[in-house]
Amino acid sequence: MVKVDLSGAQSFFEGAGPDYNAAAQAHRTLSEKTGPGNDFIGWPELPETIKEGELKRLVSVAQKIRSRSKYLVVIGIGGSYLGARGAIELLKPAPGPDDTKVIFVGNGLSPDALNRAIQEIGDDDFDINVISKSGTTLEPAIAFRVFRALCKEKYGNQAKKHIIATTDAARGVLKSLADAEGWETFVVPDDVGGRFSVLSAVGLLPMAVAGIDIKKVINSAIEEFKALDVRSPENPAWQYAAARQHLYGLGKKTEILGCYEPSFRFMAEWWKQLYGESEGKNGIGIFPASVEFTADLHSMGQFIQDGTRDLMETIVRFDKFSSDFTIPFEMGDADGLNYLAGKDLGEVCTIASDAVKAAHISGGVPNIEIHVPAINEEGFASLVCFFEMACGLSAYMSGVNPFNQPGVEAYKKNMFHMLGKPGA
Amino acid sequence: MVKVDLSGAQSFFEGAGPDYNAAAQAHRTLSEKTGPGNDFIGWPELPETIKEGELKRLVSVAQKIRSRSKYLVVIGIGGSYLGARGAIELLKPAPGPDDTKVIFVGNGLSPDALNRAIQEIGDDDFDINVISKSGTTLEPAIAFRVFRALCKEKYGNQAKKHIIATTDAARGVLKSLADAEGWETFVVPDDVGGRFSVLSAVGLLPMAVAGIDIKKVINSAIEEFKALDVRSPENPAWQYAAARQHLYGLGKKTEILGCYEPSFRFMAEWWKQLYGESEGKNGIGIFPASVEFTADLHSMGQFIQDGTRDLMETIVRFDKFSSDFTIPFEMGDADGLNYLAGKDLGEVCTIASDAVKAAHISGGVPNIEIHVPAINEEGFASLVCFFEMACGLSAYMSGVNPFNQPGVEAYKKNMFHMLGKPGA
Repeated sequence: MVKVDLSGAQSFFEGAGPDYNAAAQAHRTLSEKTGPGNDFIGWPELPETIKEGELKRLVSVAQKIRSRSKYLVVIGIGGSYLGARGAIELLKPAPGPDDTKVIFVGNGLSPDALNRAIQEIGDDDFDINVISKSGTTLEPAIAFRVFRALCKEKYGNQAKKHIIATTDAARGVLKSLADAEGWETFVVPDDVGGRFSVLSAVGLLPMAVAGIDIKKVINSAIEEFKALDVRSPENPAWQYAAARQHLYGLGKKTEILGCYEPSFRFMAEWWKQLYGESEGKNGIGIFPASVEFTADLHSMGQFIQDGTRDLMETIVRFDKFSSDFTIPFEMGDADGLNYLAGKDLGEVCTIASDAVKAAHISGGVPNIEIHVPAINEEGFASLVCFFEMACGLSAYMSGVNPFNQPGVEAYKKNMFHMLGKPGA
Repeated sequence: MVKVDLSGAQSFFEGAGPDYNAAAQAHRTLSEKTGPGNDFIGWPELPETIKEGELKRLVSVAQKIRSRSKYLVVIGIGGSYLGARGAIELLKPAPGPDDTKVIFVGNGLSPDALNRAIQEIGDDDFDINVISKSGTTLEPAIAFRVFRALCKEKYGNQAKKHIIATTDAARGVLKSLADAEGWETFVVPDDVGGRFSVLSAVGLLPMAVAGIDIKKVINSAIEEFKALDVRSPENPAWQYAAARQHLYGLGKKTEILGCYEPSFRFMAEWWKQLYGESEGKNGIGIFPASVEFTADLHSMGQFIQDGTRDLMETIVRFDKFSSDFTIPFEMGDADGLNYLAGKDLGEVCTIASDAVKAAHISGGVPNIEIHVPAINEEGFASLVCFFEMACGLSAYMSGVNPFNQPGVEAYKKNMFHMLGKPGA
């Protein structure tokens, strides 16, 4: 279970501070499904549903892929890839020589990136996991056409066994194709939007292929969502949602998410989509940005300490790293570091984190800490459930529908028209 | 040479629009070195200095490393690594099997990341390039102590031939160590700050080891800085600096830098340091953020289109990609993409970029485009010179010293005290 520490934000609160009554109201709206977007609140039940549904088959398909293929080509964009990529980079940052490597394509339109992916795979064995609710999103559709052809070229009439489609249960181009061709399919649930889908097959299949224990993830997620259902200001999701909405009301318009573990980079990208797309509408919303510490203390650090004062900072702190590293002693101490010799690097990192927190607070940046016990399946699951729940609450508190994204249609309409798509 | 297109910002300008008189004044202040930070304006002459100085030796040392080592371990943080990493990811995103792989360590305090780097190198041959003006910055100092020991363990009395120090010409812990141990050294110039140092040995040695033609980079940079010296509103650096300061004055407090080539990711990180650290001080400054298109149209796209209206958007557009990819025809057209068959993916990307630009403008986000002819050494050099010059001008226009970073001392002071550093 994550813990939220608001001690670094306390001195910035005004009046009655974070509005826990509003958090309680938002929680009721969410759990009773009485607010806007109420067709898309299937995600708190998702871990239970998966456990009783697709989990076993996900594990066995992943095992089959791991045993036969050097690569899994995951084709998806936005919510159909960020969660899995975030999870894999965090939990399996360095695949072993015998691991199946998960690569992500169809998340852009760069010919160079597509050529690089094809070149990387070379003559090695691969499977394809195409992830799209409809099958009509341009980037993954193009990449899938390309990789489908490569797959047929390589595997002939066995090709269909190398394609797994994660898509709508009943409708859409991709579902029709899958049925016609006989591909294995998993479901993108109707009541779960893309950015809340990492704990469905969307995220779980790539994660399992990468070697993540998805049973552990799901079991932890079930516990976590239960814990997050408590209706009190002790609920970490209430704390985070209420604190950031309060700070936003006080003019803190940008939230920086930071972490001291560089492999967290794509979890931060996942978080940006979750919060940016849920809250950034109707001309309002906290702008989500991310930094990687300590690296970015030497780049964005100056701005955070001393630039425009409309920032709040949220730091994800893993209470322990996955490994130790003892700083060695050196005869002569030519570099003057012997005062740290024998200390674990993780311990130095913890001290640095505390020092940075104090500095940023004194510079006028409210600090929220999210403590996660460890960098493992349980920690990942806790963090995901926490961020999802807090996001739903926070967006409802701000008065918007957390579960739609009307703004993404504008460029698509232009684009399909300019590309000459029939009917556009 | 880059070209700036302000057509997408025009409709947002008010009154007399961007203040080119102020740009002219800032340019005088910069070139005559009469403003604050005037001890740190060596960077416009850097390419010339390098060409007549270290360039030949940089190329030959890089060649030696490429011929003997599987890895170059670059130890540095902030300005001592972001430029090289940005350049290498952009220009050499996929090292070939015979290429020396450049890995970056000492830019954080995660024991997991350090252990992963050591594990990746395994028993392979490596060289070390440690980059630090003083040698006392904590993160690289720790990493260097560790890798120095590994190097001695592996190469015994030949170890000193595998260490190259890029550091101060005369002073500091690292310089003393290098002299005592007999390491090859290159110079971090006195009059160039870290974030402006990518065209010195700081950036050039790692780039050359990765296989980038640094002679081409330097020759292009010399031309580019000449072109950027023109004193008129035709100067792209004036255009960018004046437009963004004008928009900032109108309440556009956050600038999003975007690119349609995913390998640009760390160039955007370099840009964030350049602008954030130069301008974010005294309680003011444009907050620099970055997105990767089209991927992030499916995550941050909603916020950009429809969230808090204090954004401006700057898009780096490479006028051509490095490779083609023809979208294939498919019998039956089951996915409905045949309307694109035969088109190059890069062309589709260009159309998408135009569609996105129009959508964001209509959503209230001023758009600035920076056109770069190609993803190659010349394009990289142009972009670096352009961004550096525009940054100096923009920061002077906003009334701050572009070349200091007083805010980064706050956490360091806390940290060294808490770590028990002697004398802190």
